[in-house]
Amino acid sequence: MTKFRTATVSDIGEEALIARVVERIGSPPSGDIWTGDDAAFVSAPARLLLTTDMLVEGVDFDLRYSSGADVGFKAMAANASDIAGMCGRPLHALCAVALRGDLAMSWVEDLLDGLVAGAARWGIALVGGDVGGGREISVTVTVTGDAFGARPVLRSGARPGDALCVTGCLGGARAGLAALRGNLTGGRLDVLRALQLRGNARVAEAAALAELRLHAMLDLSDGLATDLDRLLEASGAGCLVDPGSVPVCPGIEEAGGLSPVETAILGGEDFELLFALPEERVSAAIDAVAHVGTPVTRIGTVIGGSSRTIGRTPLEEWRRKAWRHLKY
Amino acid sequence: MTKFRTATVSDIGEEALIARVVERIGSPPSGDIWTGDDAAFVSAPARLLLTTDMLVEGVDFDLRYSSGADVGFKAMAANASDIAGMCGRPLHALCAVALRGDLAMSWVEDLLDGLVAGAARWGIALVGGDVGGGREISVTVTVTGDAFGARPVLRSGARPGDALCVTGCLGGARAGLAALRGNLTGGRLDVLRALQLRGNARVAEAAALAELRLHAMLDLSDGLATDLDRLLEASGAGCLVDPGSVPVCPGIEEAGGLSPVETAILGGEDFELLFALPEERVSAAIDAVAHVGTPVTRIGTVIGGSSRTIGRTPLEEWRRKAWRHLKY
Repeated sequence: MTKFRTATVSDIGEEALIARVVERIGSPPSGDIWTGDDAAFVSAPARLLLTTDMLVEGVDFDLRYSSGADVGFKAMAANASDIAGMCGRPLHALCAVALRGDLAMSWVEDLLDGLVAGAARWGIALVGGDVGGGREISVTVTVTGDAFGARPVLRSGARPGDALCVTGCLGGARAGLAALRGNLTGGRLDVLRALQLRGNARVAEAAALAELRLHAMLDLSDGLATDLDRLLEASGAGCLVDPGSVPVCPGIEEAGGLSPVETAILGGEDFELLFALPEERVSAAIDAVAHVGTPVTRIGTVIGGSSRTIGRTPLEEWRRKAWRHLKY
Repeated sequence: MTKFRTATVSDIGEEALIARVVERIGSPPSGDIWTGDDAAFVSAPARLLLTTDMLVEGVDFDLRYSSGADVGFKAMAANASDIAGMCGRPLHALCAVALRGDLAMSWVEDLLDGLVAGAARWGIALVGGDVGGGREISVTVTVTGDAFGARPVLRSGARPGDALCVTGCLGGARAGLAALRGNLTGGRLDVLRALQLRGNARVAEAAALAELRLHAMLDLSDGLATDLDRLLEASGAGCLVDPGSVPVCPGIEEAGGLSPVETAILGGEDFELLFALPEERVSAAIDAVAHVGTPVTRIGTVIGGSSRTIGRTPLEEWRRKAWRHLKY
């Protein structure tokens, strides 16, 4: 009976599925082409940011926890965050989705809801994509972006004496995962669960920072310890970070016995921005980002040489504790 | 023992894997950024083509037949073909790859070979990507393109009286699949097998056609019957096609009892270009594409009304026989 109650991807078939996607995507501005042809055709800046990010069932999301809308939103968030990490603004998205034939169409509709909501949240035009079969679900989003008409902010420009700052709070997404796995709900834990399931991207924050001539920036997708090490490695510099100054998301201590500070330093997928800029512009950065409602916290200083520590512990040691994607 | 003989994706880990990819991608022109940051940063035309195409293990390729290099090359070919189908030239590619942890690194190196070879074949800059885990291999490539500074050629512009033409020959990739499945090799079958395994993209042919003010075009990825129907549906027109004029790839009759003409009409993944243009420009189109070494064949005529036939058989009937991706 169940078999006939809900339409599946196989029941619907590729053609009807694509028609449904086209319907959800809406109409392009005059002169642009989105869906319906071999490729989309859009207006874009002559200097273009390009990034792609893939979410795979069982690795990047778990269907026991994530709805289709969560997956779609997070796929868009991860890409928007990469553009924000370059101090840019996302413009267009393409989405390639692999779907199991037995998957309920209601899940796919939900996925579309999430993609459309994520695109709307960060002002992205979802202009096309690809749909195909697979034994597991995967969602790959590719996003173009504009560096506000300027050079983007790279990882490699941090200089000794620069202040190191982060937006928002850290560890929330990792703690949210613990709350999901432990089936812990309520209050602040629901906020943390949402951070894990849907993610956020600091697009407005990047725009607010665009005038401040940052020296270096990236988005925190693999955890502060790992991404800070990457920024410093690219810049050929060291750091001193005070663990007491790292902004810890509230409620982590309720998520099944996690250490808040350690989770903030190691936890991935926070999608906050980590940046380096001269001491004298820190207060301007704090003010600029406060205008869009997000705190900025100074966590440390870039130093010459290769010593990189959070507290008395080298980043290398912190990193060994952190999550490794392919070591599953 | 075997376990230690060959390094796997898990042995290597994400960081080393990405380092290997970066090494293979090479260096960007001055001012551009490819790998190493949150996003690539490139020069692109202000009016931009965008397309994405995904290949999934077990659906779009079979590891019993395809090497890593085949998969990488075909992923690039499918995307380059979509850009060619708009009468454009591919510029940049991003590639998101899901890999099983137990996959041999030699396969991954081979995949990179194929991606790099495909990019080189069609003059595409492979500027970045994403690597992650999965239970099955998938390769999603996204490509930007330039419509030679003009409007791209859409599916929707065919007018009654236009000639319908195709590049190259049809049915080869489908026959190649039959040859692979039947373990048939030798002579012309090896050419057909390569068409199935690696594909081709008519980028130089699209460039040669750019001056000819085509009315409509697309690339043949789902077979002539299906894609012709799409072009005519978008154009609101009908057609008369002579099955005797459809260019059939040589050797199909050796591929395990396939009907050559039927295979040419129904077989997918030929990546040839199907286009409509005024009668008086057909010979110019033939000449222009002959300069890059590829034949163009006139197969029929666009007519008013909704009657669409190949021989005496309606396209709708042909299409019912054709492959449906998600009906597996």
